[in-house]
Amino acid sequence: MDCSIIGYDPVGAWIKTTDTVAELLSYRNTGGLTWININALKDPLAIHPLAEIFNIHPLTIEDILDREQRPKAEEFADYLFITLKAIIRHEEEIGFEQISLILTPDTVITFQEIPGDSFHGIRRRIMDNIGKIRRMGADYLAYAIIDSVVDEYFLTLDTLGDGIEDFEERALDENDTSLISDLQKVKQTLIRIRRVIWPLRENLISLLRLDSNLINQELEPFLKDLQDNVIQVVETLETYRELLAGVMEVNLSALSNRMNKVMKVLTIISTIFIPLTFIVGVYGMNFAYMPELEHPYAYPITWGVMVFIAGGMLLFFKRRHWL
Amino acid sequence: MDCSIIGYDPVGAWIKTTDTVAELLSYRNTGGLTWININALKDPLAIHPLAEIFNIHPLTIEDILDREQRPKAEEFADYLFITLKAIIRHEEEIGFEQISLILTPDTVITFQEIPGDSFHGIRRRIMDNIGKIRRMGADYLAYAIIDSVVDEYFLTLDTLGDGIEDFEERALDENDTSLISDLQKVKQTLIRIRRVIWPLRENLISLLRLDSNLINQELEPFLKDLQDNVIQVVETLETYRELLAGVMEVNLSALSNRMNKVMKVLTIISTIFIPLTFIVGVYGMNFAYMPELEHPYAYPITWGVMVFIAGGMLLFFKRRHWL
Amino acid sequence: MDCSIIGYDPVGAWIKTTDTVAELLSYRNTGGLTWININALKDPLAIHPLAEIFNIHPLTIEDILDREQRPKAEEFADYLFITLKAIIRHEEEIGFEQISLILTPDTVITFQEIPGDSFHGIRRRIMDNIGKIRRMGADYLAYAIIDSVVDEYFLTLDTLGDGIEDFEERALDENDTSLISDLQKVKQTLIRIRRVIWPLRENLISLLRLDSNLINQELEPFLKDLQDNVIQVVETLETYRELLAGVMEVNLSALSNRMNKVMKVLTIISTIFIPLTFIVGVYGMNFAYMPELEHPYAYPITWGVMVFIAGGMLLFFKRRHWL
Amino acid sequence: MDCSIIGYDPVGAWIKTTDTVAELLSYRNTGGLTWININALKDPLAIHPLAEIFNIHPLTIEDILDREQRPKAEEFADYLFITLKAIIRHEEEIGFEQISLILTPDTVITFQEIPGDSFHGIRRRIMDNIGKIRRMGADYLAYAIIDSVVDEYFLTLDTLGDGIEDFEERALDENDTSLISDLQKVKQTLIRIRRVIWPLRENLISLLRLDSNLINQELEPFLKDLQDNVIQVVETLETYRELLAGVMEVNLSALSNRMNKVMKVLTIISTIFIPLTFIVGVYGMNFAYMPELEHPYAYPITWGVMVFIAGGMLLFFKRRHWL
Amino acid sequence: MDCSIIGYDPVGAWIKTTDTVAELLSYRNTGGLTWININALKDPLAIHPLAEIFNIHPLTIEDILDREQRPKAEEFADYLFITLKAIIRHEEEIGFEQISLILTPDTVITFQEIPGDSFHGIRRRIMDNIGKIRRMGADYLAYAIIDSVVDEYFLTLDTLGDGIEDFEERALDENDTSLISDLQKVKQTLIRIRRVIWPLRENLISLLRLDSNLINQELEPFLKDLQDNVIQVVETLETYRELLAGVMEVNLSALSNRMNKVMKVLTIISTIFIPLTFIVGVYGMNFAYMPELEHPYAYPITWGVMVFIAGGMLLFFKRRHWL
Repeated sequence: MDCSIIGYDPVGAWIKTTDTVAELLSYRNTGGLTWININALKDPLAIHPLAEIFNIHPLTIEDILDREQRPKAEEFADYLFITLKAIIRHEEEIGFEQISLILTPDTVITFQEIPGDSFHGIRRRIMDNIGKIRRMGADYLAYAIIDSVVDEYFLTLDTLGDGIEDFEERALDENDTSLISDLQKVKQTLIRIRRVIWPLRENLISLLRLDSNLINQELEPFLKDLQDNVIQVVETLETYRELLAGVMEVNLSALSNRMNKVMKVLTIISTIFIPLTFIVGVYGMNFAYMPELEHPYAYPITWGVMVFIAGGMLLFFKRRHWL
Repeated sequence: MDCSIIGYDPVGAWIKTTDTVAELLSYRNTGGLTWININALKDPLAIHPLAEIFNIHPLTIEDILDREQRPKAEEFADYLFITLKAIIRHEEEIGFEQISLILTPDTVITFQEIPGDSFHGIRRRIMDNIGKIRRMGADYLAYAIIDSVVDEYFLTLDTLGDGIEDFEERALDENDTSLISDLQKVKQTLIRIRRVIWPLRENLISLLRLDSNLINQELEPFLKDLQDNVIQVVETLETYRELLAGVMEVNLSALSNRMNKVMKVLTIISTIFIPLTFIVGVYGMNFAYMPELEHPYAYPITWGVMVFIAGGMLLFFKRRHWL
Repeated sequence: MDCSIIGYDPVGAWIKTTDTVAELLSYRNTGGLTWININALKDPLAIHPLAEIFNIHPLTIEDILDREQRPKAEEFADYLFITLKAIIRHEEEIGFEQISLILTPDTVITFQEIPGDSFHGIRRRIMDNIGKIRRMGADYLAYAIIDSVVDEYFLTLDTLGDGIEDFEERALDENDTSLISDLQKVKQTLIRIRRVIWPLRENLISLLRLDSNLINQELEPFLKDLQDNVIQVVETLETYRELLAGVMEVNLSALSNRMNKVMKVLTIISTIFIPLTFIVGVYGMNFAYMPELEHPYAYPITWGVMVFIAGGMLLFFKRRHWL
Repeated sequence: MDCSIIGYDPVGAWIKTTDTVAELLSYRNTGGLTWININALKDPLAIHPLAEIFNIHPLTIEDILDREQRPKAEEFADYLFITLKAIIRHEEEIGFEQISLILTPDTVITFQEIPGDSFHGIRRRIMDNIGKIRRMGADYLAYAIIDSVVDEYFLTLDTLGDGIEDFEERALDENDTSLISDLQKVKQTLIRIRRVIWPLRENLISLLRLDSNLINQELEPFLKDLQDNVIQVVETLETYRELLAGVMEVNLSALSNRMNKVMKVLTIISTIFIPLTFIVGVYGMNFAYMPELEHPYAYPITWGVMVFIAGGMLLFFKRRHWL
Repeated sequence: MDCSIIGYDPVGAWIKTTDTVAELLSYRNTGGLTWININALKDPLAIHPLAEIFNIHPLTIEDILDREQRPKAEEFADYLFITLKAIIRHEEEIGFEQISLILTPDTVITFQEIPGDSFHGIRRRIMDNIGKIRRMGADYLAYAIIDSVVDEYFLTLDTLGDGIEDFEERALDENDTSLISDLQKVKQTLIRIRRVIWPLRENLISLLRLDSNLINQELEPFLKDLQDNVIQVVETLETYRELLAGVMEVNLSALSNRMNKVMKVLTIISTIFIPLTFIVGVYGMNFAYMPELEHPYAYPITWGVMVFIAGGMLLFFKRRHWL
């Protein structure tokens, strides 16, 4: 486990990293804002000193430790608790990391499931005093963290969107038999993303309705903007699913068109030769009395009849647009 | 970038075009109304003088510059911000242009993504004093702009509707193998249009509920009418999708009916000749003792039997309605 | 264009027909109620004298003239505006006519798109003093007009319902290849009806909620009844669509069952004769040393073997329930 | 037409049956409660004496007489009007009967479409003083009547549920070609039941919200229970539809698996014999110079080659899991 | 039937088990809390002493005894009644047990359908004073019981989830013909679970809204957490259904791809040999005058022609990507 603590106010900012939660607590900022970030929390006991100081409800601790926790936002007496899933991309694979966030009037505590540097951008904005983050309250910091999580979804969706365009081209290639299972993989990814992003939408709506005194009125346009972004993610997911369904229909239609074409040509070849084979069979019979056999032009005449039959059938098929 | 500024009141109207936003600001109308239109804004800094004068929130500027912004309407302290997508048609292709609109008590500022003359009609109505636009407030101008955007959707839907009628005729042509992929293209267009028009519907509803003092009571029937038009667009899109689904079903059924007919006829031909070929094969055997071979009428009798078998099979198929 | 004006009160009733709107206005009833009906309005200017007298909003006039107007109900300062689609049946074809209705305290103005006699029944009830229409207010007249429009939908649905029962019988007839496209035509009709009836439902709900003083409390059960009828139309449409979907499934299943049966029988015939044809081919070979050929019972033995093979295959197919 | 009238109070109960409505009215109970039941009402005029006494609105009478009336609950000045559909089972067939119910403070009037004894159980509870029905008010009687109607739906659903279990077994029997059309019949029954039960759900909700003084507070848990039962009917219908859809998928998959298996085996037989037939054809040719024909072991060698080819093909098909 | 009664307060706890309900009642705790658990209630009369003491409504008793009762929560004058379904797993089989719960200020009464030890964990927490259960009220005990029921759903879903991952692997195995019916079994299980868990969701929402004085404010976060868990169960069910639908699509596509491949190869073999068989048939004819027959190189030339034709067809099929 590794922890970091950042203290800042409009004038300055400092950062410390420690190995245990207990160590952290001696650094708490007074006057300004404090941001405590805890990575890869495994030992439930380690959280207790924090829980006592910030009066954290046992259910909140349970939710922080439960990695399958559904995204939610809940108001408690002394703090606001928000948990959501961040998206993580490793090449083709998409995973999720649980981010929990506790907002008190002067402190933000974040819990990350996987050690990493997801919040690097925000940390830099605080340390280098970029934008207005230093002049805003703890609620703005919480907003900035959630916003950076949602932004990552947009980047992922862009990548998926490019993949869907590829599918649209592949849909007409009838030999691409792996298309359907590739499609299903993307579809399952969309289902999994929607499953974690959908509750976030409700949570942001309920945050706006909570009218908590932990959230300043000033923050409202930011929260609305955030909610708007989440809705856009959800709508983009829906649009992608519809596009994928369309790709699938085109592909099935292409496959079946092609199969039909192949079978038709092959069947027509058989159909033309079968009567001809019958005719040559007739004159292969060994009957003692078959007057045609002796006729001097019988052989060329038979050829003529066969060419005529074959031609007639071809013409018939052509007329009926079967060829 | 090119900008234009129009000042008007019930008595008169004037227009100026400039290259930079800064130049524009010296022309601001006093007493009457001002309409500032900015084309193809690329440099975010260029907008700052405007932002300062009209007290525009940083989030609004971000939304204006983000071309993927979801349509929305938001009220700020000093202005109402509306962003929506205009539809652009280039022959068969359909694209979208982001239109952002800031409404203050005496000024309307519009931002267009693509330089063009979408608002030509409204400009003419102001300059030539057509209708009541000059006698109405800034809110009516905003309404007129949004209305002209929505009208363009209706024209596009009419064109698409004509295309769907063509599809209904093509559905029964079994040789039209490109129908499905053509259908999918239209379907994707419908999905894309719905994606940008759907949020507009909510926004207009929320505008009506906002009860902002930027919007006069007098404007309410116009806004309701506009909302009504947007709902009609959405419903028309849904109807089109259902009609397309129907076209697809008819086409699949036509294709499969035809394929079945072809395969059946071909299979029946094979089925009739196969037993006959067997019979002629029998008398092609070279056994030393085959009494039939010597019989003087064996050959015509064999023909008779074969004609009888073929006729019997044809009759059987006919009776079972397989032909 | 032809116009009619009816004046009535509990005591008496009179009717006039004129060619122009202007003429009409001299006949306006005082004390009692007036019903002005205008057919096939084409010239927008002709409506202006009416508009001035009844203080009709320009948007209302626009809606009356726009034949693609979505059904809606709107309250203005001096009147209630309702526009809806009447269904028109010409034998198999179903069309729609736009009916617009303006309700003021003492006058009802109706606009019909197509000259005809849709309101004949109501006119008779007024002139012949049938039922309580003469004793009721202008709101009841408006209700009676809308009710007669909705009743026409019920009659149309009854006819469509009979057609669906026919489809259920046709579904099992595998030779009925036009079933699917006939089904689709009915489905499209259902889609088109739903599109015009659906908004009516909301409008009646909003009329009930409007609490307008143009509508007496006494009329409420009638409006509720009317709303109920509209909901019943919508639900019947949904039921029909589900029944049609069922018919389609049965038909596809019947077609595919039959095709499978045909193909199976034909394939089995081929499969039985192909090995036999091979055997007769063997003894048709011209090798110098083929001992079987000289055997006196070779021919009948070969027949025996072939009958045995054919019988064995038939038995095998029968056992596996392939026949 | 036959009518019955029951009068009861906690102390006693009496019953009369008459042929006309007029006769009934002389028996009205004073002090206690009266239940008037009218069977198979055909003559609209016969209802008028009732209508006058109980001040029944013309729309209510219309609804009672209209057999296609959608279930609804409506409050009028002096009474509550409820109309719903009772389910009637005749062996396999399911039909509906319209039950209308008027609830006044001391009287319940019921109208049945089909003469029968649906309310026998309730009549017995009143006459034999079973349960608390005699001690409760008119609202409880109305509840008991509706409850007995809803109970009949549960019994019908149980029967349908047993049928669905049969379908699940039949789904895997590929020769059961009538399954799909049997399924569709049950599906249509479910659609028809849902159509009449769905509005009942809303009506009970609206009854609970009406806060009518015709319904005692004491009755609320009973109405909630009833509403709960109706919801359970609707949910059971939905579950059945989903189960039927599943049965259909399993059946289609079973049919197609089997068809594929049959076609594959048959096609493989043809495929093996076709090259062999070619070979025997080769040595059936009558060319003057064919060296193989004279070779003493040509015939057995040919057989060897053919067995080798057939065996190789079988092995190849086996390896590819085509057999 | 077997019953147990537990009395506890922060200081101590005791447990008694009896055979009849009547015996139980002598043990009721005073001062502290009482938990009465009744297993496998069959005799409706046995419940009467309880009903009298706790003033239980007859409808509640009916609901407790009706095993098909839909989950619900209802508030009565003296108690809160909750009934829900617990999930029971026996290896592969999934069943449901009805749990009814009556909450009074100082007593919780639970009814289990099947004798078993579902509540073992809670009993241990009370007896061994684990956690805060002894310090909390009767409402917390009720919460803990429902929570343990919902937890069992999560465990079941985890098992099902593992099964779905197996399906995803099996989907691409075209010989796995039992996949579809296995899938349907899981799908039916999901339908059945959703049917009993869905109403629970509403009930918890209504419990939170009831604002009953039986539920302390302190319990609210626990109830919200519980509701959250139920929603997560429902969403997981939906996700599973979508994943199963995807598995099905992949499997159908795999099956059809494979069938097509097989049929194509087989048909191509036939198509190549059919013209060759015709050629050898030609030279098997017995015409007296067939000049080719006498040609010394006719036999090798014929072979050459046949190899050329077969090669040409193979090349043609290859070029068209039919092989």
